[in-house]
Amino acid sequence: MDGRSARKRQAIMDAARELFLANGYQGTSMDEIAALAEVSKQTVYKNFADKRQLFAEIVLRAASRADEFVRALPQVLADAPDLEAGLRTLARRYLAAVMQPELLQLRRLVISEAGRFPDLARDYYELVPDHVMTTLAVQFGELSEKGLLEADDAVAVAGHYAFLVLGLPLDRAMFLGAEHGLTPGAMNKHADAAVGVFLAAYRPL
Amino acid sequence: MDGRSARKRQAIMDAARELFLANGYQGTSMDEIAALAEVSKQTVYKNFADKRQLFAEIVLRAASRADEFVRALPQVLADAPDLEAGLRTLARRYLAAVMQPELLQLRRLVISEAGRFPDLARDYYELVPDHVMTTLAVQFGELSEKGLLEADDAVAVAGHYAFLVLGLPLDRAMFLGAEHGLTPGAMNKHADAAVGVFLAAYRPL
Repeated sequence: MDGRSARKRQAIMDAARELFLANGYQGTSMDEIAALAEVSKQTVYKNFADKRQLFAEIVLRAASRADEFVRALPQVLADAPDLEAGLRTLARRYLAAVMQPELLQLRRLVISEAGRFPDLARDYYELVPDHVMTTLAVQFGELSEKGLLEADDAVAVAGHYAFLVLGLPLDRAMFLGAEHGLTPGAMNKHADAAVGVFLAAYRPL
Repeated sequence: MDGRSARKRQAIMDAARELFLANGYQGTSMDEIAALAEVSKQTVYKNFADKRQLFAEIVLRAASRADEFVRALPQVLADAPDLEAGLRTLARRYLAAVMQPELLQLRRLVISEAGRFPDLARDYYELVPDHVMTTLAVQFGELSEKGLLEADDAVAVAGHYAFLVLGLPLDRAMFLGAEHGLTPGAMNKHADAAVGVFLAAYRPL
């Protein structure tokens, strides 16, 4: 693909992401996407077979942003002076990543469209929340082998960590949107308290 | 309202609930609601000013089903032979209540429409998840006064309990729908493990 085609493709994806997040799948037309991207409708269809395919690409590309957090995860724990500090830093970063406004909107959109796009919702679940938990489970398993955690069922332990940290803020944000009322300070406090509960259960005596 | 009018009103609400849950807000018309309820469109509009009002009534009526669980909650704890048994029974009932297919669909619908109906989403949040957590916090505060729990910040403690129990299954269900793959047995096991983590953190030494 030459530079001009690549730029047009990118402009289409940017326009589509903006419109899908603002107006939903049903509320967005290929005409509007072409207009916002400043390309012809023919160009849109040359790049994407139909609205479904474009939607799937937008969701999966945005989902891949979770990879960054997943890749950084082992190092966050390795760099910390001790386990508690590592789990706290991780919890704060995890929460901050998930509570990004655009990611919240995307999450709401995927949940909204899960009836129409069950495979896409499943892919998203596997690529984002499940991928993070699987990565956590590997780390917790290693910590358990080193005797730093008592985590026999590392997958279940990862789920406890994830939802102690994220559960409440994410639920608020799904219903209340940007008006969820949690300041960065409140989120950090929440993350620290979550780690406290987690360690009370899983730190070896 | 005479019996015939009340029956018609109920038929409209039943039809609307079925269609909104299956096809969403945008995907449902007042014509379809009238047809499914076997009443004239005029009768629909005599009972409900517009689709927005009918939608709000459906959501808030369904939300009121959470009241049943909230009312039973103190008694579940009071009737149990000990705190751990009470928290386990409560966790299993909480999870079973929230994971009812129709309630999951409603939850997904409210999240989907939170952009269009922010006040309704806020009402739902306050009437359902927040109401349960507030009720839990009262109970945990009392248990703390009796020295059975160490729950200084009862609201935060209630949030930890709620999301240890519900977080993961509910998140799976939002993305995977009825294909969430959690059997009743798996949910009970999850509820018991959640109580184990909770008590490790909050049971007095």
